Amino acid sequence: MVRYVKKAVASKPPDSKDMLDQVVLIAGVSVLGVLEQAYFSLQVIYARRKFSVTPPSTSGPPGFERVLRAQANCSEYFPVFVTILWVSGLFFNQGLSSICGLLYLYGRFLYFSGYAKSAHGRLAPLYFSAKVLWVLIGFSVLGILSFVFRFYLGLDLMQLACSV
Amino acid sequence: MVRYVKKAVASKPPDSKDMLDQVVLIAGVSVLGVLEQAYFSLQVIYARRKFSVTPPSTSGPPGFERVLRAQANCSEYFPVFVTILWVSGLFFNQGLSSICGLLYLYGRFLYFSGYAKSAHGRLAPLYFSAKVLWVLIGFSVLGILSFVFRFYLGLDLMQLACSV
Amino acid sequence: MVRYVKKAVASKPPDSKDMLDQVVLIAGVSVLGVLEQAYFSLQVIYARRKFSVTPPSTSGPPGFERVLRAQANCSEYFPVFVTILWVSGLFFNQGLSSICGLLYLYGRFLYFSGYAKSAHGRLAPLYFSAKVLWVLIGFSVLGILSFVFRFYLGLDLMQLACSV
Ligand SMILES: N[C@@H](CCC(=O)N[C@@H](CS)C(=O)NCC(=O)O)C(=O)O
Ligand SMILES: N[C@@H](CCC(=O)N[C@@H](CS)C(=O)NCC(=O)O)C(=O)O
Ligand SMILES: N[C@@H](CCC(=O)N[C@@H](CS)C(=O)NCC(=O)O)C(=O)O
Repeated sequence: MVRYVKKAVASKPPDSKDMLDQVVLIAGVSVLGVLEQAYFSLQVIYARRKFSVTPPSTSGPPGFERVLRAQANCSEYFPVFVTILWVSGLFFNQGLSSICGLLYLYGRFLYFSGYAKSAHGRLAPLYFSAKVLWVLIGFSVLGILSFVFRFYLGLDLMQLACSV
Repeated sequence: MVRYVKKAVASKPPDSKDMLDQVVLIAGVSVLGVLEQAYFSLQVIYARRKFSVTPPSTSGPPGFERVLRAQANCSEYFPVFVTILWVSGLFFNQGLSSICGLLYLYGRFLYFSGYAKSAHGRLAPLYFSAKVLWVLIGFSVLGILSFVFRFYLGLDLMQLACSV
Repeated sequence: MVRYVKKAVASKPPDSKDMLDQVVLIAGVSVLGVLEQAYFSLQVIYARRKFSVTPPSTSGPPGFERVLRAQANCSEYFPVFVTILWVSGLFFNQGLSSICGLLYLYGRFLYFSGYAKSAHGRLAPLYFSAKVLWVLIGFSVLGILSFVFRFYLGLDLMQLACSV
């Protein structure tokens, strides 16, 4: 087994490693995000047992519906988050994007826990994670624009901004 | 601040830039898609206020449920769209895939607005965006097959097709 | 038309091809996943017609709700699956990740068919596809850790493990 795993890991050609280090942090944050989604799903399964709500039903006491909706809402935003995390990491800066990614996942954890307790408890963490998402969107727009200007027009936007 | 942003953007090594220009257009379309999803979410939040439907409830007057479902349906398809956009952009052609991506996002905007007005209003834009998705699927299959044939079998499918 | 397609495919520069072969298998599995999601959506549309449940309604006889929920559940997990498939394929091993990806998609097909027949029918395939997801998560963690150790610390974890 170990031998297979070793061979598998070693089979990456050396030049692709130079590219992988450009995404290793955002890949790590993505895996954390996947683990968080798995945790949310498990909480819904436990809530289904606790409140005896058998599928395909999605309605039950408010305590159940809040857990269900908390997970549904986080699932809805997950692909949006992963997409913007990777674009921001690739075109702006991997380190800053990963930090935002961690903050977002932390905000979503608070959202889930808060929403599970009361509908009001979801609001503060929702605003927080939405703000982080907007920062990642801003990073992505900046990164892409600056890339386009440098690559296609030979203009360094940042240098320009600084020299003014 | 500007200095940090400058350093962040400048820290990309020069060789990775050659790769980023292979995805810059689809990255841009992805960011537009993220913005569109943010817009849809905001519309649901406004509709919740307008029709006084407080979470975790998802049922209310038809006018509310149509907005809620319009956003839910677009969210459901968003990861499917992003996945096929990137595969098509990487393996077939970035420019054509980005144009399809823009058309898809435009179709989804019409879907959302149409569905918000009446259930029937969602149909025409749904068929349109589904067709664009099928084009992207076709591009992806063509691109991957053609890559496999060239890379592993040394056969240029397109040249073959033309020389017949 | 053929000429345009030909030009489009041929326009990839030769050096990017060396990178694309690192992801061609997971790209192929992703396209299959997209096709599966399209199939699930079509089944919901047919079920809406069969049971006369017009949007925006999502409630109806159990036979309808099971199909609707089966598709909703698969959609919820789709971005999680695609994310972990790519991280595992990039950082661990493309072949093994693609095999897991195919198993997951097969498990999801059984989940959908099982759930459509009876709520109980979803359980066995759900456990199976969850297990495959955990394997992909394990691969990703292993791949990222091993990359970090080799790239930043110059330590080959696998060699270390074997020499003990
Ligand atoms: N699907 C969401 C879309 C908009 C959204 O993200 N709303 C926030 C603020 S009202 C929320 O926490 N929704 C609760 C929920 O989705 O159950 C909804 O139904 O509200
Ligand atoms: N979740 C969708 C899956 C299938 C789908 O995309 N249906 C189209 C055509 S009926 C639609 O517009 N559905 C409306 C909706 O999702 O609310 C559904 O419930 O219908
Ligand atoms: N959205 C899911 C999250 C958790 C989950 O994946 N549950 C499994 C086991 S109970 C399932 O098959 N749920 C059925 C469904 O989503 O309709 C739920 O509502 O249950």
